[in-house]
Amino acid sequence: MFTRKIFLIVFATLFIAAVTHAQKNIIVGTRDTVYANTLHENRQIWVHAPENNAPDGIYAQRHCPVIYVLDGDDHFKAVVAMVERLSQGGPNTMLPPVIVVGILNTDRNRDLTPTHVTAAAMMDSESVARSGGGDKFISFLEKELIPHIDSLYPTAPYRVLIGHSLGGLMTIYTLLNHTRLFNAYIAIDPSVMWDDQKLVKQAQSTLGKNNFAGRSLYLAVANNIDDGMAPAKDTTILGFIKLHTRSIMELEHALEANPKNGLRYSWKYYPEYNHGTIPLVAEYDGLRAIFSFYNYNLPFQELLQPNYKGDTAIMQHYEMVSSIMGYKVSPEEELVNVIGYNLIQSKQFDRAWYFLKMNIDNYPKSFNAYDSMGDLYEAKGDHKNAKAYYLKSLAIRETPDTRRKLERLNKAE
Amino acid sequence: MFTRKIFLIVFATLFIAAVTHAQKNIIVGTRDTVYANTLHENRQIWVHAPENNAPDGIYAQRHCPVIYVLDGDDHFKAVVAMVERLSQGGPNTMLPPVIVVGILNTDRNRDLTPTHVTAAAMMDSESVARSGGGDKFISFLEKELIPHIDSLYPTAPYRVLIGHSLGGLMTIYTLLNHTRLFNAYIAIDPSVMWDDQKLVKQAQSTLGKNNFAGRSLYLAVANNIDDGMAPAKDTTILGFIKLHTRSIMELEHALEANPKNGLRYSWKYYPEYNHGTIPLVAEYDGLRAIFSFYNYNLPFQELLQPNYKGDTAIMQHYEMVSSIMGYKVSPEEELVNVIGYNLIQSKQFDRAWYFLKMNIDNYPKSFNAYDSMGDLYEAKGDHKNAKAYYLKSLAIRETPDTRRKLERLNKAE
Repeated sequence: MFTRKIFLIVFATLFIAAVTHAQKNIIVGTRDTVYANTLHENRQIWVHAPENNAPDGIYAQRHCPVIYVLDGDDHFKAVVAMVERLSQGGPNTMLPPVIVVGILNTDRNRDLTPTHVTAAAMMDSESVARSGGGDKFISFLEKELIPHIDSLYPTAPYRVLIGHSLGGLMTIYTLLNHTRLFNAYIAIDPSVMWDDQKLVKQAQSTLGKNNFAGRSLYLAVANNIDDGMAPAKDTTILGFIKLHTRSIMELEHALEANPKNGLRYSWKYYPEYNHGTIPLVAEYDGLRAIFSFYNYNLPFQELLQPNYKGDTAIMQHYEMVSSIMGYKVSPEEELVNVIGYNLIQSKQFDRAWYFLKMNIDNYPKSFNAYDSMGDLYEAKGDHKNAKAYYLKSLAIRETPDTRRKLERLNKAE
Repeated sequence: MFTRKIFLIVFATLFIAAVTHAQKNIIVGTRDTVYANTLHENRQIWVHAPENNAPDGIYAQRHCPVIYVLDGDDHFKAVVAMVERLSQGGPNTMLPPVIVVGILNTDRNRDLTPTHVTAAAMMDSESVARSGGGDKFISFLEKELIPHIDSLYPTAPYRVLIGHSLGGLMTIYTLLNHTRLFNAYIAIDPSVMWDDQKLVKQAQSTLGKNNFAGRSLYLAVANNIDDGMAPAKDTTILGFIKLHTRSIMELEHALEANPKNGLRYSWKYYPEYNHGTIPLVAEYDGLRAIFSFYNYNLPFQELLQPNYKGDTAIMQHYEMVSSIMGYKVSPEEELVNVIGYNLIQSKQFDRAWYFLKMNIDNYPKSFNAYDSMGDLYEAKGDHKNAKAYYLKSLAIRETPDTRRKLERLNKAE
């Protein structure tokens, strides 16, 4: 089944999802509540799932990586906007379609601090008294939230954690102490000065010993000193800000000094953004860095030429992607289907077969993959095989379009 | 009326809007349709209006600048996410609350091209045949869309236009030829190579002659050459990309060469972003640049000390903001109200009066401004004036809280 025409326009967007005008509101996610036994409280979450990925769609439902965002209500909408843009499909695709989960706070200073302290700069004594709940919070993520999301959404076994400030502290803490819980970590101007830089010291001692194979980290460092956040006369605040940044840079040096622990690591200093303004840009850069291997700049126009010789490149690319992501990631079914139909149209039947077979192999439960192969055989005049594939398609899902084509072939005999 | 407590937490967010759990969906805007007589067609728009700005709220409804976004469905969600963050209230406020209008395309190559051409690189002949509808499109904005938005939303007379690529071309065209239609322009990697660089040539000849007083422009330039967008072997595409960037740089030089035409102008080259990835970061930087004068880093804790001497600074700041924006912009009513109550609490009555009077002057239709002044007089023991202000408040809006306070004073006599 060929669902829409494709145009390759340089400097434009491919595969823009059709706007549904039935719904008046523009919705980017839904609110949900999870009871946390670990914490004896209800937790609010915001969840975004990719559009056009329903189990009854034309293409097989895809399993998607999940991005967990700390301080959820602050960052959720921006992260959703950027993942939608970066995973738009076609040659500009930087990310696979992803699910985004924003975790809202109940007691930020309790949950996002890994250790208990008796005093902390810029924190009131009540908050300090409750500090150090990080392990319980991570236990909630591991034992309750992640299973909850996995039970409700088509998730892939690839998770990203994004945190800013104290959320960044918890992100680094999770990387060092619960390394396997997430595959990738984005820590934005993290408050690693916490508890006399305990985490920086841990990083210095364990980054060389532990194995971080298959994990990625993006670290973003803000410019808090030149950017007016500290009134110069207030030496307490200025000292705090300097220690904040120095602590992050000491962590950076420890990361840089241990390049052989398997961690895919990159970082950036942002001279034009302070602690408050950095998150949006760092989230965007962080996602692009974490998924830097993902984009496949498909040479669509060249690929349609009969003398094109690189048909296997797309599968090779996704084998590389799969090896980094740690599970099988397949080329987008719709894109491969479109390539197949374009090749049928120009009567390059063997090449069309190669791509349509790729979809059958990658998406064996897709009724459409078999229907498309049926169309190829019909175009070739091989009615016997065409009917066989239409029947396979109908065995998975009864659709009027495929049924009509099958009946037409039956009548023609 | 004092609605909530205020805490000043460095490195945290003030005034986070309460999450409404009644609504399951997370909504960032609504879809609307405007019939364009100019274009003989329906136009879809997406509109975001700030939360907590209803006419029946506790604080007076604010009139908000409007940001118009070309290629609306591509950029709307990201712009909404960033304006919500940048206008969050409190000392980190970078923007006033704004309305965002995304304009969706029907015929992009017709509407976003200012002149008709007979051939254009990377554009098919059908699109080329319809090119040059820019003036009609601007006429639709001026005569139909802007009045439509002004009729439905509490708009302030300050408008921003954001455009990327061909949208950026139209943004520059509008600045040069319909200068007064918008107050500020954000042009992102604009396609000013269009029609043999006609617009660049116009800029070179008119930027020195025309008056751009009160207008602002932010220009963002992508790195399309080093960033893998052009397969090196394809000299046609590479030539196109080079001409694209060279044209923007020639425009930049013309802007730089004419610093005395009144235009507030800034620009940035983005070595790490190409034409496709630049919009999100450029929109964010562009809004921060356009509104760079807006932030008032209120020294809240110092301000509450009895020896603080800078009470008039806040009004001076907003007078400067008003002079740049071209209409009266007042300090946030809620913030000033909170300052007033904090000063009442520490019995600094004269200073409290100064701030609460500021709200009455700035928001004369706010029932709450008079109610707060009543509370000040009651705290001072001046029941006569307290009752007079409660009555003024009740004359604007009957509220149980104010009525109760008035009756209590009446009974006490």
